[in-house]
Amino acid sequence: MSATRSRPPTITDIARQAGVSTATVSYVLNDTPGTRIPEATRRRVTEAADDLGYVPHASARSLRTGRSDLVVYAMPAVTLGPFAARFLAGLADELQDRGFTLVLHGDSASRGVRAARRWARLRPAAVIAEGHRLTDAARDLMRRSGTVLVALGGAPEAGLPTLVLDHRGMGEAAGRHLAGRGCRDVAAVIPAEPVLRDMGEARAVGVEEGLRGAVEGDAGGGQSRDGESADGDAIAMRRTPMEETPEDAGRVVREWIRDGLPDGVFGYNDEHAGLLLSALIDAGVEVPGRVRLVGADDLPLCGMLRPRLTSVGLRAEYAPAEAAERLLSLITGEEGADRPLRLWTPELRVRASS
Amino acid sequence: MSATRSRPPTITDIARQAGVSTATVSYVLNDTPGTRIPEATRRRVTEAADDLGYVPHASARSLRTGRSDLVVYAMPAVTLGPFAARFLAGLADELQDRGFTLVLHGDSASRGVRAARRWARLRPAAVIAEGHRLTDAARDLMRRSGTVLVALGGAPEAGLPTLVLDHRGMGEAAGRHLAGRGCRDVAAVIPAEPVLRDMGEARAVGVEEGLRGAVEGDAGGGQSRDGESADGDAIAMRRTPMEETPEDAGRVVREWIRDGLPDGVFGYNDEHAGLLLSALIDAGVEVPGRVRLVGADDLPLCGMLRPRLTSVGLRAEYAPAEAAERLLSLITGEEGADRPLRLWTPELRVRASS
Repeated sequence: MSATRSRPPTITDIARQAGVSTATVSYVLNDTPGTRIPEATRRRVTEAADDLGYVPHASARSLRTGRSDLVVYAMPAVTLGPFAARFLAGLADELQDRGFTLVLHGDSASRGVRAARRWARLRPAAVIAEGHRLTDAARDLMRRSGTVLVALGGAPEAGLPTLVLDHRGMGEAAGRHLAGRGCRDVAAVIPAEPVLRDMGEARAVGVEEGLRGAVEGDAGGGQSRDGESADGDAIAMRRTPMEETPEDAGRVVREWIRDGLPDGVFGYNDEHAGLLLSALIDAGVEVPGRVRLVGADDLPLCGMLRPRLTSVGLRAEYAPAEAAERLLSLITGEEGADRPLRLWTPELRVRASS
Repeated sequence: MSATRSRPPTITDIARQAGVSTATVSYVLNDTPGTRIPEATRRRVTEAADDLGYVPHASARSLRTGRSDLVVYAMPAVTLGPFAARFLAGLADELQDRGFTLVLHGDSASRGVRAARRWARLRPAAVIAEGHRLTDAARDLMRRSGTVLVALGGAPEAGLPTLVLDHRGMGEAAGRHLAGRGCRDVAAVIPAEPVLRDMGEARAVGVEEGLRGAVEGDAGGGQSRDGESADGDAIAMRRTPMEETPEDAGRVVREWIRDGLPDGVFGYNDEHAGLLLSALIDAGVEVPGRVRLVGADDLPLCGMLRPRLTSVGLRAEYAPAEAAERLLSLITGEEGADRPLRLWTPELRVRASS
């Protein structure tokens, strides 16, 4: 019963109980093609395996496939919203059906060799991790252990298959919308937490492009999707660093009031936007009358706030089974190593706050 | 470079490169006491290990300790809030410092032998999972592979060390508070999702006890913490099943208006409470004037809602390092197998909604 005395049953235990060689056990359990094993022997082996409670080892390299079946998803330093949680749960199921085991590695702070050594302890077939954590030394360590790396990021990572989450595109959708509503002085929030800053910057660059695109679209003959920004003025955008706390949201709003309120705000994500909305209400600033506000991620809280929060969500491009297939084709090297995979498309959901 | 050709370096590779036996490599890397190895040999081994990028295998059983160093946290079927996410990230760090690797298993739907087989593939030292998933057959399979099981649940699980999350106590804190505010007709929301129902029922039982306790406390000489419920009346409590959607929150509120509004509501958690608040506002029902509302988990959204949401949060009983030590003492069997571990205590945070 104690962990120090018991050990998982091995194929040697099965071989002993079934009275056959370990090679025979391996052939039967792996269903190796080209072997002729009598049905009675086959049954003796599977019965012994069931009786002993044998379970194959996820990170033992299979002689047949030359790889382990473990996929490690290195959790990014962002709260796992319901969208991401559902995606990962679905992915775990789909991978399980295909003989892979997905585990999440919760240490989101380490990067480089330090992180790679932690992942490598699991002997995974593949690791999915944010691109900025994959230093050259980390890539080298993973490569030498035969682990496939899949980057996660806002843009394709050179030399690696990348799962692209289009932060720039999310910002762009918000920028176009705010420009279309007539905003001419927009603030884009940049989260103060160091691990989130790159993501915030990518979204802010997108907001700038969206604002510019809306103006150029108008100048070029009204191709803007929103009708209200037809004057072609340049639109100013400032970056506003903010911690994800009510206190810092209060500070930001006080400074805006002192230095001049923006007429449009992209809150980086729904939590930051929700904190800002709360601080704006407390300061007596009308939303959307005086300031139009847009969040991102389209969390359920958008519908609970008053006014309800406009947000840029993500639309899944593929059903879970196809998403898993496409991800596996990167892991097993069936597609080009540089091929980016876009599973989601930004999609604006307009509500009362903008 | 390809996953099918490369493999992680082993102690045999190190032995070959350093020109020593595998036993010597094992002694050096495990720092085995009682062996005398010349410093030059020791250096040759560690240099070869570094050069080859050797990383020990988390789920290989160490000859020295007789166990793997992998701890699997089987994710419950609840959204990982910032509180739980911070706890798990802290736990991962603390366990890492103590030579253990924590991974999260995202398949939250399977239970019994099906779940146990999935966990066993990882050859973990220990699995932390909700008690209701640990059927007798699952426990047997884990036991035979020498894996320590730690249950996660609202109450100690017979025969297993349990990490107790006091759902009943959370409900009780809400019930006492609502009774103290003068509520006499209370509704406790039960989440409709099957995997959440037990948790909802445990919290509802707690609400009932809290309401009764407040009344008895008054009858016995005013021991209630809240001063307003001094009349000693029995307090009615109904259970209200609800899906976590705006549509179902709307249905619940319509039925309450038709059948008689409760004067106090425990929303099960902050998301359900937030959806109900939104539906109550839309229906023109004043909160807290007509209905007092309490959530649970104390998520950041409580401060974003208007009125701000009263919620039952959890206070950590120990600093992360001590929590990890206590959890490890369960895993390594240093404490009694039946010993429950309570890392958190329910704590009411009163805001405007109640």
